[in-house]
Amino acid sequence: MDGIGPRQKLWLERSDGRVVMSDYRLRLLELIAQSGSLAQAATALELSYRRAWGKVRELEENLGYRVVDSVVGGPGGGHTRLTPEGVELVGAYRRFQERARAAVDEIFAEEFPR
Amino acid sequence: MDGIGPRQKLWLERSDGRVVMSDYRLRLLELIAQSGSLAQAATALELSYRRAWGKVRELEENLGYRVVDSVVGGPGGGHTRLTPEGVELVGAYRRFQERARAAVDEIFAEEFPR
Repeated sequence: MDGIGPRQKLWLERSDGRVVMSDYRLRLLELIAQSGSLAQAATALELSYRRAWGKVRELEENLGYRVVDSVVGGPGGGHTRLTPEGVELVGAYRRFQERARAAVDEIFAEEFPR
Repeated sequence: MDGIGPRQKLWLERSDGRVVMSDYRLRLLELIAQSGSLAQAATALELSYRRAWGKVRELEENLGYRVVDSVVGGPGGGHTRLTPEGVELVGAYRRFQERARAAVDEIFAEEFPR
């Protein structure tokens, strides 16, 4: 199938259906880590600050641990960063996502040869 | 991550973004093949007959070939079946989907060990 390619949306669910990670949540957490700012991450995703904050809080509730940490004040003003557990989750999910994409591309090429 | 598992939504896209197959379209075509009836397939997916028909037509337009064939009248009344190209597409996509699911399960187990 010429010019045709596979697409994939991934997420991780608890057995009760609650989402504990997803491609979208990865992007949100990576943007927070890169910018050090929930407000900047929210803007990049065209979310309100309130909505971005709600998504992080819901994710933490589903996971049962904190993934971001807000530091208020200090010389450069407040900022938000990932917790060590958040860094670990982002790394593991990023590898999971990249390997899954590569696997799906390979399987597609085998099942739909030109 | 105990009790947590990966979920995946797959589809195939042309370079212009038009969808030429998906998990949902696979289900629709498999239901048509099993029941021999677009009306029954539509009911099973809680779609109107008109909407199910529209989905099949849109898929055929994006693919550039027919995937279903309607036979009108005859001793058992009319029915809808897959074309040979439709049968081939359903088979290839089913294998693609099953292998992709197995690969994602395996990668998840490796990246998120208990």
